[in-house]
Amino acid sequence: MADHSFSDGVPSDSVEAAKNASNTEKLTDQVMQNPRVLAALQERLDNVPHTPSSYIETLPKAVKRRINALKQLQVRCAHIEAKFYEEVHDLERKYAALYQPLFDKRREFITGDVEPTDAESEWHSENEEEEKLAGDMKNKVVITEKEAATAEEPNPKGIPEFWFTIFRNVDMLSELVQEYDEPILKHLQDIKVKFSDPGQPMSFVLEFHFEPNDYFTNSVLTKTYKMKSEPDKADPFSFEGPEIVDCDGCTIDWKKGKNVTVKTIKKKQKHKGRGTVRTITKQVPNESFFNFFNPLKASGDGESLDEDSEFTLASDFEIGHFFRERIVPRAVLYFTGEAIEDDDNFEEGEEGEEEELEGDEEGEDEDDAEINPKKEPSQPAECKQQ
Amino acid sequence: MADHSFSDGVPSDSVEAAKNASNTEKLTDQVMQNPRVLAALQERLDNVPHTPSSYIETLPKAVKRRINALKQLQVRCAHIEAKFYEEVHDLERKYAALYQPLFDKRREFITGDVEPTDAESEWHSENEEEEKLAGDMKNKVVITEKEAATAEEPNPKGIPEFWFTIFRNVDMLSELVQEYDEPILKHLQDIKVKFSDPGQPMSFVLEFHFEPNDYFTNSVLTKTYKMKSEPDKADPFSFEGPEIVDCDGCTIDWKKGKNVTVKTIKKKQKHKGRGTVRTITKQVPNESFFNFFNPLKASGDGESLDEDSEFTLASDFEIGHFFRERIVPRAVLYFTGEAIEDDDNFEEGEEGEEEELEGDEEGEDEDDAEINPKKEPSQPAECKQQ
Repeated sequence: MADHSFSDGVPSDSVEAAKNASNTEKLTDQVMQNPRVLAALQERLDNVPHTPSSYIETLPKAVKRRINALKQLQVRCAHIEAKFYEEVHDLERKYAALYQPLFDKRREFITGDVEPTDAESEWHSENEEEEKLAGDMKNKVVITEKEAATAEEPNPKGIPEFWFTIFRNVDMLSELVQEYDEPILKHLQDIKVKFSDPGQPMSFVLEFHFEPNDYFTNSVLTKTYKMKSEPDKADPFSFEGPEIVDCDGCTIDWKKGKNVTVKTIKKKQKHKGRGTVRTITKQVPNESFFNFFNPLKASGDGESLDEDSEFTLASDFEIGHFFRERIVPRAVLYFTGEAIEDDDNFEEGEEGEEEELEGDEEGEDEDDAEINPKKEPSQPAECKQQ
Repeated sequence: MADHSFSDGVPSDSVEAAKNASNTEKLTDQVMQNPRVLAALQERLDNVPHTPSSYIETLPKAVKRRINALKQLQVRCAHIEAKFYEEVHDLERKYAALYQPLFDKRREFITGDVEPTDAESEWHSENEEEEKLAGDMKNKVVITEKEAATAEEPNPKGIPEFWFTIFRNVDMLSELVQEYDEPILKHLQDIKVKFSDPGQPMSFVLEFHFEPNDYFTNSVLTKTYKMKSEPDKADPFSFEGPEIVDCDGCTIDWKKGKNVTVKTIKKKQKHKGRGTVRTITKQVPNESFFNFFNPLKASGDGESLDEDSEFTLASDFEIGHFFRERIVPRAVLYFTGEAIEDDDNFEEGEEGEEEELEGDEEGEDEDDAEINPKKEPSQPAECKQQ
């Protein structure tokens, strides 16, 4: 069928349609004669119905209606799940009270207020176990108090720089610590997590306890994280448990000239009229771990944050979560480094994933839900910036 | 100082020591004269004390003794944590009962036993919302029952092939499904999770409910996962919550000639004496999703599994965990595909991480603990092969 047979007296639309029809026919002929193209095409066609959303589109209205009913049920499930996480939070509060006597003992051993007994400090490490099995029974696995005291070594009080060493060992924290923060952090004696009271909005407070020092008069610096455990109205299916939505710091009462979060710069100022130049001093923000206690506000005036601020806030939430979930409950393992390697491996995995996300053009939603069937965090809470 | 000045009358050990001393001196001289080598060396020296375990080695015995005391406390914390997870499991059991009426409704809508009311099937999708905002108020966002019934479309019963579609959509499952499994899986009508009773050893059962079919007589196929929520004696610090340690399947009562988990092969057999050849038929295992109900045993005779078997078992545990944590609680989102993309992104991250681990020669422990501060799974349970 030649193109010209349609070109007399028919509207141009029809001509176009006819041309397309004709081209379609030609193309189809070509394809049908080329087995390799045909095979490739067949493969593509086979794959089309496997895209779940396109499959849903092909379903009759009556079925779509039933799927909508299932979605309604799913939203109700999300709200039940939110209640579940509130009860888990209650459990966490209950268990925090059970951990506390052990954490108090930990603090006493660290500060040196109490010396552990020989029974309390007995420890069989894996290596020692192997040596014992190898028949070397002379190898003592317990350092007795007497032995430790008579050793020709210094005997400092408690475990010096315990918490500061953790700050050095954990990359997420050491990145924030400046050289001038270090002497201050050496006075850190304990970190506690306090959960919100029953019936109160879900939150937790990190308490940083300092011994008297030359830098500030506070004995405790606090950081409060506010959480939310309810499905988002606009996106209820993304609910995966409580998330940190905002945080609050505290005022640090710096001693004179000791505030490391500001620096004084000199600035030359020219008098407009007279043209004379004078040097003024001005205080500007300075990088420091102690800015952790003066965070950005996520909520408040309803204005949305810029991208940099959102990133800063998300990092802050991640650090708060990490203190609560890992460092405070397992401090000694971050001091010895036993907990570090695993976390590092995890972080590498995380980075890999983000790269994948960035490269994925089909990604519709940046809010990636993750499941982790092999190893899971110790408590079901999460931090995600709202 | 020349080497020969020490070579007369001194034992060879001393000569060696002196040579070393002399070499050391020379090398030191060379280094001190080369600022670039010096800088590189300084950097390495600076990094040494940052390795946590080497830092611990340098501490006085009295301090090491106190660290051992903290480790003892940490083990006690792990045992308290185990109790916490048992209580979380109790909560999960309690909430399973709250979800059940919604899951029962879901089943009725899927099978078509009950038709949702117009109110029950109302659903405003995000796109529809946008269209409404754009002023197109004619766009109806609810498919009424009447409308669905009068549409010139087929009206099948319920949501046909609901669970089978999920099997097709989820890679972890579709990998297991053979072509001959598909007609069987189309008869799958519900999947339920049943938790162990209070006081019983921690476990859960996946129940696969089938409508009457031509393949087997069972109406329910079950897979039981046994869990453990206590710190490992040899490695108490690795405890991160309950883990799957073993599983059990069920016997499928296949109708005659319908068992897809075996195939019949023909084999020629030569008679030793007479030399005649006869053809015998033999049943051998066949790949099929239904082998999921005939898993390897992790425990039992005390013999350890080979690497392949361990991998198979670990994959099985992962699938069981995924059914329990994701598919059963959020089935409709795996049917529509809304839940798929996020999980895929997660899996990519996981793979990246494993590669990192394999390439990491310093990795001491394959048992990688992971924390996930951004998004966490809905329930604190994990599957890890013992």
